[in-house]
Amino acid sequence: MIRFDDRAGFAAALATLSEADAAATEAAAARQRMLTKPPGSLGRLEEIALFLAGWQGRERPRVERVRAAVFAGNHGVAARGVSAFPAEVTAQMVANFHHGGAAINALAGACGAELAIVALDLDRPTGDICVEPAMSEADCLDALNAGAAVVEPGLDLLLLGEMGIANTTPAAALCAQAFGGAAELWVGRGTGVDAHGLARKAEAVTLALSRHGRGCSDAFEALRRLGGREIAAMAGALLAARMSHVPVMLDGFIGCAAVAPLAHDNPAITGHCLAAHCSAEAGHERLLAALGLEPLLRLGMRLGEGSGAAVATQIVRSALAAHDGMATFAEAAVAGAL
Amino acid sequence: MIRFDDRAGFAAALATLSEADAAATEAAAARQRMLTKPPGSLGRLEEIALFLAGWQGRERPRVERVRAAVFAGNHGVAARGVSAFPAEVTAQMVANFHHGGAAINALAGACGAELAIVALDLDRPTGDICVEPAMSEADCLDALNAGAAVVEPGLDLLLLGEMGIANTTPAAALCAQAFGGAAELWVGRGTGVDAHGLARKAEAVTLALSRHGRGCSDAFEALRRLGGREIAAMAGALLAARMSHVPVMLDGFIGCAAVAPLAHDNPAITGHCLAAHCSAEAGHERLLAALGLEPLLRLGMRLGEGSGAAVATQIVRSALAAHDGMATFAEAAVAGAL
Repeated sequence: MIRFDDRAGFAAALATLSEADAAATEAAAARQRMLTKPPGSLGRLEEIALFLAGWQGRERPRVERVRAAVFAGNHGVAARGVSAFPAEVTAQMVANFHHGGAAINALAGACGAELAIVALDLDRPTGDICVEPAMSEADCLDALNAGAAVVEPGLDLLLLGEMGIANTTPAAALCAQAFGGAAELWVGRGTGVDAHGLARKAEAVTLALSRHGRGCSDAFEALRRLGGREIAAMAGALLAARMSHVPVMLDGFIGCAAVAPLAHDNPAITGHCLAAHCSAEAGHERLLAALGLEPLLRLGMRLGEGSGAAVATQIVRSALAAHDGMATFAEAAVAGAL
Repeated sequence: MIRFDDRAGFAAALATLSEADAAATEAAAARQRMLTKPPGSLGRLEEIALFLAGWQGRERPRVERVRAAVFAGNHGVAARGVSAFPAEVTAQMVANFHHGGAAINALAGACGAELAIVALDLDRPTGDICVEPAMSEADCLDALNAGAAVVEPGLDLLLLGEMGIANTTPAAALCAQAFGGAAELWVGRGTGVDAHGLARKAEAVTLALSRHGRGCSDAFEALRRLGGREIAAMAGALLAARMSHVPVMLDGFIGCAAVAPLAHDNPAITGHCLAAHCSAEAGHERLLAALGLEPLLRLGMRLGEGSGAAVATQIVRSALAAHDGMATFAEAAVAGAL
């Protein structure tokens, strides 16, 4: 099990990222060329097969052990009226996850993912990022390690999801800090705030950047000052997954925002990531572009919880079913191209 | 079982299309509003649930009986060098379907669809559309009815796929006939022809339109003159499905081209259709726009066989898992929006 001892350990791990297994990728590519279809005709399904081959180190990758980790946290900034829902909903939805009634329960079931729910000190919201850091150093490290703890070597795919009323606001702040641009470019309607709520979000992000911008000296510090526990947990899980060669399916705006400070320090961090979808949240398209990720789906989803990641995992299943199950031209006695 | 007695029967059925069950659609919409998520936050997954509710006539639609019908035909126009593969590959691929080695076998398995392979007189290619009609009236009617025969009342979803070396050329001709525009706008690389092959396709489509354009007095006649057996079969299956209230998942360029002449005569024909994906074939984006369909996926696929429809069926499974499996706000004791 990966554990980050301190901020320096986290930074060192982020600075020295491993790469995919090039031989396994090439073996998978060679197999794709022999399958009974015109070369390239399965489009991104072929790319997915090669991607997973590289990170799993197998010519024929698999999706048997899939975990959907959903991290939940509460946010001091919620008191500023930046969400359409009250903060109590975070804990209520965690109970809903445990009882099996949320979207992620249904969608994880449909894609064959085991669900790991990790609620992080819900009765202890983070500091209001407009006036103070979200977390102490110890709290941030705990959150990173809570994320790392969901990563087991041998997982075939890890889905990262979240629940946290008000968390699109710290997410927008992390994006603006990592990639620049005014707060207005990064805030969106979230769960459904009105125009006044949207203006409050932009104001909160502007205040937070003004308060913490110069203090965000590296990824850890940006997560600590501007993030939240569930956001830091996703960042910790992402880095631990890389260290364990576990490929990751990113979900929506908040999950991708957790990657932003890491990508600022080392853009190669997205190498083991698939982007599940582009959500309806305003900043997500820009964020995916900044991360260099092309989403698999564009279905207008904006729920979080890892819901988009679970839907996209169905595409991965299809990709690997074709890669693994199809016959070669020789096996099927089919003539190749003229 | 639906059977079209003659061309007039086909035209009459196309002129008098049934509508979805509005009460079931509204019941499903009411259920969606109660589920534990912000309203609309599942995006197109919610639309899919309502669409299937309406056509299945159930508040909670299901995807238990899913059939992927793959029709195969051969084309006289293949002799003009419009494909990267020789015409023998059609029969070889049908054998591959029967042996379970093709992409559609793997992808239908992954999405839980039963496969129905219908090879249509492969040893008797259609006429070369550049100089003669593709089919006689009797042959065209037989093909329409071969399509209708795969439709059973009670199917939850019908996927339409095809295999037919050279069939992007008649497909392009049908599109140009139905929606106008030069041949060059509708032809593409298909399975992978080079620039010379592409020019030969455009020339063939131009010749075919010049020969048959004025003769295409209705959908039947367009299918008969410019189409092919597998294309007419998909059109017959589509109309029979509508008559049986079976929703249809359309696949790629050729499957959508089979809809084009029907949509020309009655644009409401697409009402019971989902468009699985926008393929990499050049004319598909334009064709989907002309049909008024927004594809679920854009994965750069261009294989045919119903492969994209099978992948998109995974999205349908996710949509219905959420619609059926989620708790309501009341059941979960979660607070609604502020």
